[in-house]
Amino acid sequence: MTRSSISSFMAGTDRTRTPVLGGPRVILVEPQLSENVGAVARAMLNCGLDRMSLVNPRDGWPNDKALAMASGATAVLDTIEVFATPEEAVADITNLYATTARPRELTVRVMTPREAAADMRAAVARGEEIGVLFGPERSGLTNDHVALADTVISVPLNPAYTSLNLAQAVLLVAYEWFTSGDTTPPDTLSMSGTRMAEKQELMDLFDRLETELDGGGFFRAPDLRPSVMRNLMSMLQRARLTDQEVRTFHGMISALSRSWQNTQNAKRRRGELDD
Amino acid sequence: MTRSSISSFMAGTDRTRTPVLGGPRVILVEPQLSENVGAVARAMLNCGLDRMSLVNPRDGWPNDKALAMASGATAVLDTIEVFATPEEAVADITNLYATTARPRELTVRVMTPREAAADMRAAVARGEEIGVLFGPERSGLTNDHVALADTVISVPLNPAYTSLNLAQAVLLVAYEWFTSGDTTPPDTLSMSGTRMAEKQELMDLFDRLETELDGGGFFRAPDLRPSVMRNLMSMLQRARLTDQEVRTFHGMISALSRSWQNTQNAKRRRGELDD
Repeated sequence: MTRSSISSFMAGTDRTRTPVLGGPRVILVEPQLSENVGAVARAMLNCGLDRMSLVNPRDGWPNDKALAMASGATAVLDTIEVFATPEEAVADITNLYATTARPRELTVRVMTPREAAADMRAAVARGEEIGVLFGPERSGLTNDHVALADTVISVPLNPAYTSLNLAQAVLLVAYEWFTSGDTTPPDTLSMSGTRMAEKQELMDLFDRLETELDGGGFFRAPDLRPSVMRNLMSMLQRARLTDQEVRTFHGMISALSRSWQNTQNAKRRRGELDD
Repeated sequence: MTRSSISSFMAGTDRTRTPVLGGPRVILVEPQLSENVGAVARAMLNCGLDRMSLVNPRDGWPNDKALAMASGATAVLDTIEVFATPEEAVADITNLYATTARPRELTVRVMTPREAAADMRAAVARGEEIGVLFGPERSGLTNDHVALADTVISVPLNPAYTSLNLAQAVLLVAYEWFTSGDTTPPDTLSMSGTRMAEKQELMDLFDRLETELDGGGFFRAPDLRPSVMRNLMSMLQRARLTDQEVRTFHGMISALSRSWQNTQNAKRRRGELDD
């Protein structure tokens, strides 16, 4: 799969900003494909992780294919330490997580990536050194690897289809790490140089609208006029207008009534209407 | 990047279970690489989404490369409808989301994928037809596409590095959809054929341990014995033992005391100890 540099899905790339970094060390046990090491580096940097260890990588290290695939995230590759065994790679870690399916033979604590992220944040706040083990692409971690860990991370996915590649598994765990510390407002209105309209601006708009609609004969049943106006107000307030949009709406009212007048005048000129 | 079928990161593949399906339609606008269409199909099925539409795919449709990449998720490709324009693709949708960076020129509602997933669940519960637009790999959605949507989904990521490929963007949005409806316990103990130990079993173990330790001369300062025992109890209870592990612990105590007795007997036989 070709990777392309798409900033368009994200909250906006700003390379002048300091990268958000820190968090768990990502430890790849016996990765088979160097391209995947590069892809993992990208997924990590997406989510503010920048420390990777490799245990006995099949293609050796350093490796040109990984470098090519990591384009833009080579800083992560620069942090890589290579170890001969998982035991050496985790020696200085106090909180170790292992990503794997729910183990059938071990009695071990199992967390979702979201719960694990909260657990990691708490561990980091206590000053602990944390790491996450990811197994080889096809076979995954063995029970011997899992036995080194404090906690298993198991990603809840469609039970009928759980095929996920290494970089995607890292992405989901790292994404939960990132979002657990992210303060992006979950639901917001993107506004540039504008602000939410205040009630007075809206009430002035509704007054103007009612006057012009009345002039155009909109309220055919006078007794229904209050409820019709309430429904219009409700509809327009549901849109959460900005001050700029209130001005635009005033302009639309003017243009529409001019349009009507222009049509009337044209008809008058053509003698289709009495003066 | 080569994809491999790794069930080892997930909560366990069980192909006899009915796939979890439903949720928003995924609409790819002008996808450039057929491989990405296949990769998107896999990411969707991972997260229980199974309806895809294509708008003007560069390589046409159907396409062998997409089919090869979708291995195992071809059922999603079978649902694909192809449209000439985004307007045609979204015609019957009532709640449309557009994945893009925070738009600079439009005043539009922007949600994180997590908030959008909750919003989608609510819409589905109301019986509404929902869809998510994803733009072409390099350029992303245009403002004209975004203007068709009710809500923008913007993925919060490391602002210094937001390069994400199409399938990964789909994966994150679909993962949030899946987890918003998932009931996996966030933190659990994986146990096979065992159960948590009851307090009586633990208290019996602690009594036995205290007796054997006493016999071995462990409590050198009798006045500290109560606090030493409390600390041992605290340590062992922190491990949250199962009933099986309590039995194992009893066996360890027996073996260790036998080991000491065997050593004593051997020394006695060698005349190193008085009778």
